[in-house]
Parts: sequence; C-alpha cells; structure tokens
Amino acid sequence: MNVNVRGQTRHYRTVTFDRARNFVLLIEQRLLPHEFKIVATKTFRETAVAIRDMVVRGAGAIGATAAYGLAQGALAFRGNNSENFSAHITAVYQTLKTARPTAVDPINAMNGVRREMARGKTVEEKKLLALAAAEEFASEDVRHCEEIGKHGAKLIHNGMKILTHCNAGWLAFVDIGTATAPMYAAQKLGKKFHVFCGETRPRLQGATLTAWELAQQKISHQIITDNAAGHLMQRGEINLVIVGSDRTLGQTGEVTNKIGTYTKAVLAGRHKIPFYVAIPLSTIDWNLKSGFEIPIEERNESEVLGAWGNNPRGKREFVRVANPTSSARNPGFDVTPPDLITGIITPWGIFKPRELWKRRQELGFAN
Amino acid sequence: MNVNVRGQTRHYRTVTFDRARNFVLLIEQRLLPHEFKIVATKTFRETAVAIRDMVVRGAGAIGATAAYGLAQGALAFRGNNSENFSAHITAVYQTLKTARPTAVDPINAMNGVRREMARGKTVEEKKLLALAAAEEFASEDVRHCEEIGKHGAKLIHNGMKILTHCNAGWLAFVDIGTATAPMYAAQKLGKKFHVFCGETRPRLQGATLTAWELAQQKISHQIITDNAAGHLMQRGEINLVIVGSDRTLGQTGEVTNKIGTYTKAVLAGRHKIPFYVAIPLSTIDWNLKSGFEIPIEERNESEVLGAWGNNPRGKREFVRVANPTSSARNPGFDVTPPDLITGIITPWGIFKPRELWKRRQELGFAN
Repeated sequence: MNVNVRGQTRHYRTVTFDRARNFVLLIEQRLLPHEFKIVATKTFRETAVAIRDMVVRGAGAIGATAAYGLAQGALAFRGNNSENFSAHITAVYQTLKTARPTAVDPINAMNGVRREMARGKTVEEKKLLALAAAEEFASEDVRHCEEIGKHGAKLIHNGMKILTHCNAGWLAFVDIGTATAPMYAAQKLGKKFHVFCGETRPRLQGATLTAWELAQQKISHQIITDNAAGHLMQRGEINLVIVGSDRTLGQTGEVTNKIGTYTKAVLAGRHKIPFYVAIPLSTIDWNLKSGFEIPIEERNESEVLGAWGNNPRGKREFVRVANPTSSARNPGFDVTPPDLITGIITPWGIFKPRELWKRRQELGFAN
Repeated sequence: MNVNVRGQTRHYRTVTFDRARNFVLLIEQRLLPHEFKIVATKTFRETAVAIRDMVVRGAGAIGATAAYGLAQGALAFRGNNSENFSAHITAVYQTLKTARPTAVDPINAMNGVRREMARGKTVEEKKLLALAAAEEFASEDVRHCEEIGKHGAKLIHNGMKILTHCNAGWLAFVDIGTATAPMYAAQKLGKKFHVFCGETRPRLQGATLTAWELAQQKISHQIITDNAAGHLMQRGEINLVIVGSDRTLGQTGEVTNKIGTYTKAVLAGRHKIPFYVAIPLSTIDWNLKSGFEIPIEERNESEVLGAWGNNPRGKREFVRVANPTSSARNPGFDVTPPDLITGIITPWGIFKPRELWKRRQELGFAN
C-alpha cells in the first residue's frame, strides 16, 4: 500500500525480492509506527533471522518471506551437482522452517516452492522455478486480498463507522491485508467512512500498526481502548465490525483470532451489528472438530504488566504499568463461535461460517 | 485496610484527622502502587489542593476529606465573634467545594457538617460539632462499606474466581471499599477465592490500585487485559463479577461506571455468570429517567494514546504508545442496563436494580 516517506508517497509491499542482488527486502515492522525503513536480508540465514526476530510478522507476510528465502538460498548455490543442490535446499528449508516453529504459512509456502522446483531437470532450471514459484506465492497472496476487498467493499456504505481489532492489515500480508481489504477497496470506490481501531492490549497492534496503515492511506480513523467498543455500539456509533483470523475451523465455522475478538463479537451480537471475519484460505483448519481443541497460547505476563512506547525524549522504552507485586494471566487468542459471525469474507465470496465445509471443493480444498 | 510498610503490617484509612495538630492525613494515591506514603495537609487550603490535585480520589474518600477540611478550617478560627466565624466557614466551604467542581460527595458531606454546626450556640461549640460531624461522616462511610461486605460475602464461595473492574476499593472510600468489600469480608470468614483485576485502560486503575490493594491484603489475584475476560468466561474460569458504580439511576436501575463495565456485563449475561454492582447510597440519582440522559464525559485523548508506567530506571514516565499521526476517542464511563445486573449490593441488603425505587423510603430517601 502507499506510504508517505519524507513527503513522497510511494507504493510498497511488505516483502519483495531484489533479483539483481539476491536480497529479500522487508519493511522493518518493529520500528513502526515511529519509523518506516526497508531492510535487506543478504542471505537465507539473515532472512530466517528476520522471521524469527519479527522484523516481518503476519501469516501471509512470513509465508512470502519464507518462499523468497528458499529461492534466495537456491540462487546462492554454486555448482551443477544435483545431489549437493538437493541437500543444500533441505538445509535452507529447515533453517527457514524453524524460524517460527508454530507457524503454518512458511511451511505451506515453501512446500509449494519445492513442488515447482521438482519440475526442473537441472540445477539452473530448479533455481529459476524456485524464484518464479516464490513470486507467484506473493502475487497470489495479493490477488486473494484483492478479491477479499472486492467482496467486502459491498458491505461498506457512505457514512458508516467500522470497528476493527488488532492488525489484519497489509503489514500482515504481502499487500492490502484481509480485514483492511474491504476498507481500501471501498476507499478506491470513493466511499466515505470512519474506522475505529481497537487498541488491542497487550501488544497494541491496533493502536500502532492498523492506525499507522490507515493514516498512511488517509482513511478517517480514531483509536479507542478495548473497553470503549461496547459504549460506542450502545450509542449507535458502530455500524459494522470486520476482523481477521489466525485459524478458522472449516468443520464448525469457529474463528480463532487475537484476544478480545470474541468480546467484540458478543457485543455486536447484542446490538445486531454485522460482524464479519476476512480470511485468507491458508488460515482454514479442516481437521479440528471443536474450538475447544484449539490450544490457546498463554503468553508472557510481562506484556500485560507493562507497555512499549516512546518516552518524552523520543526513545522506545518498556514501562511497567502494573502493581509491582502482582502477576498476570495473558491468553493470546480467543475463539468466536459461528452464531456470532454474520459472514466470512473469502477470496471466493462471502459465506456463512457453517457453509465453509460444504464449499470445501469449490474453495480448492478437494483433498 | 492493612498495608505492609517496611515489613510491618498496619491498618490505615485513606483519610484520617490529627486533632492535636489540626492536620488532615491522606494516603498519597498518586504515588501508588509504587510508593506508600501518608501526607499531612496543614490548612484547609492545603486540603482543598490535595482534593484538586487528586492526592485523594474516589467518591467516599473525597467526601470525608472535604468534611475534615471544613472542620479543620473551623478549628483554625481565632476569636469568638460568631459573625466573623460564619463568614470564615462560608469561605472554607467555597474553597473545598470548588476543588472538584463536578463531584457531589464533598458537597453532601460538607452540608451535613454545616447542619450539625448550626446546633451549636458558641463558636467553640460549633467547632467541636464540626469535628464530630466530620468524624461521623467518615465512620458512616466505613459502616456502610462494612454492611456491603456483610451482604456481599454471602455471594462468595470457596474456590470461586471473581472478576472486578477499575477500582471501587478502599482507596476510593475511607476504608474497605464497595466492590472489594465482599472480598475482604469473605476473606475474614476464611473463604478461599481468586480475583481477576481487569486492568481498565486507559488509566489502568485495576492494574495499579486494585491489584495493589489485593496484594496488601494477601488476596490471591491476577491482572488481565480488558480483552481477556470474555475468553476466561468462555472457558469457565470466572464465576462472579462485582463492580462499583459512579451513578446509579434510582428510577430505572441503570448503572454508570468506568468505561468497560458494560462490556463485562454483556459477557457475563451471555455466560449466565452473576453480575453484581456494589454501591454506597450517595451514588444513587433519583432524578434522571433514562441512562441516555447521563452525559458521558469525553476525556483527553492523550490517555488512550499513551500510558503511565515506571521506566527501566524506576522513574515514573508517560510513554506514547500509539501511532503519532492518529487521534483517539476516550469516553470515560458507560451505562449498564438493569437486565444485565443480577443484583445491587447496598448497605441494606441486595436488591434487584428495578427494586431501588420501591425501596426508596426504607433506604432513607423519603425526601
């Protein structure tokens, strides 16, 4: 999406590839919203470190980064020996895979790249196929988000006030994002609307990343505390909710997403406000039979006991906000049941959550 | 309640009076939870400044402080001239009243003190009656909170996990508090339970003041983000919710309280978890006919865009957490309708919210 850097507005993807130098180029997301900077990883090892250290984060974005990293590793191979090349690729794959051990997107993305590579006969052919497959993975991510935008934009009408939570924006994908895609598409159609970004404690991705994205795109928005959504709904100030998903159960229509999503869904249900979830297909889990089977990650309590921010001297710092002799609970995700979800916005259209299974074949999941 | 200071546990009230020196003694609440300190205000003017600058905050606590401040002003008067004394008292009253212009508790408390003073014939008699009335105001606040505790403790059973929001604790009153009163009373009865303190963004009174109170009283507790309550309820980890109230409508049973209270009530309703509001009678508004008539204070957006905490060098500091080019909405309170409230815990017993009006006379509001 567009970013204004020193007065110049330019279009960026979160992840791109520099063929001439064999570098992966990434937006350094840890510096946002306070600084916008592109960093280059010069080897597949550096690319793995960037994934591990969360220079890049978000399902689609780390998938594309891993795909590019695998191609980068392939292209850096010297020689023509197929067996050595194959062993090298296995090592590259392992390095990138273990960078974020619980994430599924890098694995899916790299498996796709390896399937394409298998079609090549020589090392040179395999290298070119790897790069083409990585580029195709990134482009498909963008096309899917564009399709989500196309379908979702129909839900947005002039004068609407929309609530979103956390960051399912373009920074979490290669471009456009999922929950934000309908907003960006509606803006292109000339629609006028306002977005409330729930700040999303404890890590505040709404107040930092989503607010930054919307500011760059010049979309009217305000940050609210997670406590304020109920009051605004009660006073008629929210007309639509759109969020993303980390894991969507294909069998039940349950949606796992950042902690606090379930609360927004319950509030929207009480106020009869449409509640939509925008998802890339990669988040669909066709195996689990109940949301209660999803292990909910308990993250470090320090996230709740403190907050990151810029101090009065402009320096990024972690401050302890809570009583020093108290501890905290910090579940990272929650599960929203299908009865609270008006629709799931996919690249293939908007479905009721319980329809996903029925449409499995149409969605390209015939296996 | 008890406070552990340098290894010694002692009982404190938030506000007391030192007759020998004519000082009001206050817990310096702005330093909590990081430092516990008692400060003395030496004149009624200093007492007014302490109210204004929020050394002391909370309905009952500032009511008692103003009552003591009026007595302090009376006792400092030199001479026997009744007319001069009367003019002096009017000036003291005005000074204390304007310290927090929108608060109703200081006015009610001081009016009570003046009514008592009117019974005195000489300046000396009036001085003694003022002090006795201020002491009685503080003692009544404590007795009412004790009664709330007595009734509310019946709701707490062994093994329960209780959610509270913001701080309706002893720091907001002279002692014991309202939402915390059932917890302190249940602890005295030997009951074992666990409290989740919702951190209460933006000002984090749950993570700071309530967590500090419970830690001092050695009550098992953890801080959670405001986002986490829904997930914990869904997983059966919350059995009871108790909150306070800033303004309770006697005619409708609607409860105005810190922003986020309504969300907790909606979640509790979905999960059929009992939701109680503990109130001192001074918060009942018998005049308004609808919660929509209550003006909801929009506070400064800087509270949402940043957070106060202790930096790594132990210094208290305000950090900017949000995207620097975004703005925020910051409603300070919300309104919970009576259908979501299981009961209102008062000093006279636990009532259904819609019963308040019917019981107006019993509750001592015959006027």
